[in-house]
Amino acid sequence: MKRGRAPAPASAPLIALDVMGGDAAPEVIVAGGLRAHAAGLSVVLVGDSARISPMLPAGAAIGVLHAPEALEMHDAPTAVRGRPECAPRVALRAVAQGRAAAAVSCGNTGATMVSAMLELPAVPGITRPAVAVLLPRSDGGRLILLDAGANADCRPEHLVGFAALGAAYARALGVPTPRVGVLSNGHEAGKGTALTRATLAELEAAVDPGRVIVGNVEPHAALAGGCDVLVCDGFVGNVLLKGVEAAAETVVALLKQEVARRMSARIGAALLVRSLGAARDRIAWSAQGGALLLGVRGVVVVGHGRADAAAVHAAVRLAHDAASAGLVEAVDASFPAT
Amino acid sequence: MKRGRAPAPASAPLIALDVMGGDAAPEVIVAGGLRAHAAGLSVVLVGDSARISPMLPAGAAIGVLHAPEALEMHDAPTAVRGRPECAPRVALRAVAQGRAAAAVSCGNTGATMVSAMLELPAVPGITRPAVAVLLPRSDGGRLILLDAGANADCRPEHLVGFAALGAAYARALGVPTPRVGVLSNGHEAGKGTALTRATLAELEAAVDPGRVIVGNVEPHAALAGGCDVLVCDGFVGNVLLKGVEAAAETVVALLKQEVARRMSARIGAALLVRSLGAARDRIAWSAQGGALLLGVRGVVVVGHGRADAAAVHAAVRLAHDAASAGLVEAVDASFPAT
Repeated sequence: MKRGRAPAPASAPLIALDVMGGDAAPEVIVAGGLRAHAAGLSVVLVGDSARISPMLPAGAAIGVLHAPEALEMHDAPTAVRGRPECAPRVALRAVAQGRAAAAVSCGNTGATMVSAMLELPAVPGITRPAVAVLLPRSDGGRLILLDAGANADCRPEHLVGFAALGAAYARALGVPTPRVGVLSNGHEAGKGTALTRATLAELEAAVDPGRVIVGNVEPHAALAGGCDVLVCDGFVGNVLLKGVEAAAETVVALLKQEVARRMSARIGAALLVRSLGAARDRIAWSAQGGALLLGVRGVVVVGHGRADAAAVHAAVRLAHDAASAGLVEAVDASFPAT
Repeated sequence: MKRGRAPAPASAPLIALDVMGGDAAPEVIVAGGLRAHAAGLSVVLVGDSARISPMLPAGAAIGVLHAPEALEMHDAPTAVRGRPECAPRVALRAVAQGRAAAAVSCGNTGATMVSAMLELPAVPGITRPAVAVLLPRSDGGRLILLDAGANADCRPEHLVGFAALGAAYARALGVPTPRVGVLSNGHEAGKGTALTRATLAELEAAVDPGRVIVGNVEPHAALAGGCDVLVCDGFVGNVLLKGVEAAAETVVALLKQEVARRMSARIGAALLVRSLGAARDRIAWSAQGGALLLGVRGVVVVGHGRADAAAVHAAVRLAHDAASAGLVEAVDASFPAT
């Protein structure tokens, strides 16, 4: 879906956007929601209506769902337990009740995860939801990395669950028998930590014809196409993802410095400027706007805490696309209730 | 030091190069050693002399130190305990005995670390050596990241030791009061894992006027100049480093794809080709050739397992420069024996 498209038909899936979470909330999140609305996506803004209303242009036909309780970035994720009327819980409840097709939050990922566990039905056999990020591989495929930030301290059974969710997601995206790897510091057996070794042993002992376990995989091998799904704890995954983003930004920044030193390069850069941005954006999470939180029955998109209005728009579009494609239902189909 | 320079004077520090470790050992490591030798660096090749000798050009005036015991990449790092005559231990023993000024190995980092602990005196108060990598920051400074791969499973006291080593290294490089951060998935207090939170609490409780503790630091903030020293366990550090490298390579690869699609970009890229390589190389570990292993009394460089001959040459040069500058002695001066 592109900007400037006509307003969505009445049947377009409604996206509940938590406008209270994120480094520049609520202003930038509201701006992103308005941008998505103007581009034809169907959005309801969830948050403190007294703060949101003055930000809306006169006559804007965009809904507001009031969430009277506040959260701070410094609150522990579990603080949402005592605040049923905070914005992420109100947004997720709208999904649980079928009033919205998906929820988007750029707030604290842990708080969004706990809210999702409180408001939405669990996926059978999955004890912890995980953030699943799609990264471009240099062989043209896509790498599903999870957990990218929901669970900092994990046990092996959590990572085994992430592998099941990631494989189901890959199948939903059209990879019939996904190759699943465990993120490690070396491909040899025995590399990794106590956590990754125990995870790999459990994965290799399980019988599941819907996937292939390829063992330990290093970041460069995964990005080169060595696997379709890469599992890790949410601390390592988040640090890796942020490091990859920072590296992409740094390469572009260093390139600009090099360019300033050489006339031929300066002319070259002027001709290349669009390609440079495109290459950086293809690797940056912000260009995708966010990532799906898998492991609960419902479409939940975790946006970037540093999201600007364009990234919020992209996150809403991702939620719209996932809801329209029935992506989360397809993942859920791998986990029938027993 | 550049290629083509005249042979080193007799007083040049001798670098003991383990030629048996690395993905393409011994051929590529020997080739790198010969390249360093031809560039005027003083090198002794350490390994199986029967395998090395046929690789040397006739009349090559380069020394070989025989190490009769073999290691495999699949061996546990502790296998070196029972093999006193394996190449990394023979190379490190030459340093301990003052016969070489520094040792370089591109083999298993854990094996090099255990060898170093067996052969070299420990630094007082440091229970685990760490690999310290220098990364370019976008503000023009340098970031010391450690541990970048020696210790996969760590306890808080190990990370506290890494902070002390990193701060001493930063001071030796000219930063009078280094800012030390703990790598985390968010800057807020309370973010991170049980390990990082305990580490930060210990660091903040300690009195040390030679550094400033700046708390949790995310990868992008560190690369933007938010701290001088960033500590983490060796699993996270290794995965982050490899991810950063892979991202830099992927951005360049994607850029080439974008370029192929657009004529103006194609012309631009031709003009930019040198700058592109320079930007990528400034962020890649391979261009530096390796990193110092800190925490033992002696200059030890850990090279990249995927090193090619140019990277091996760069690792030898790094060892030469560190030995010439008395860098490790300067770090050690922060840890007087009590």
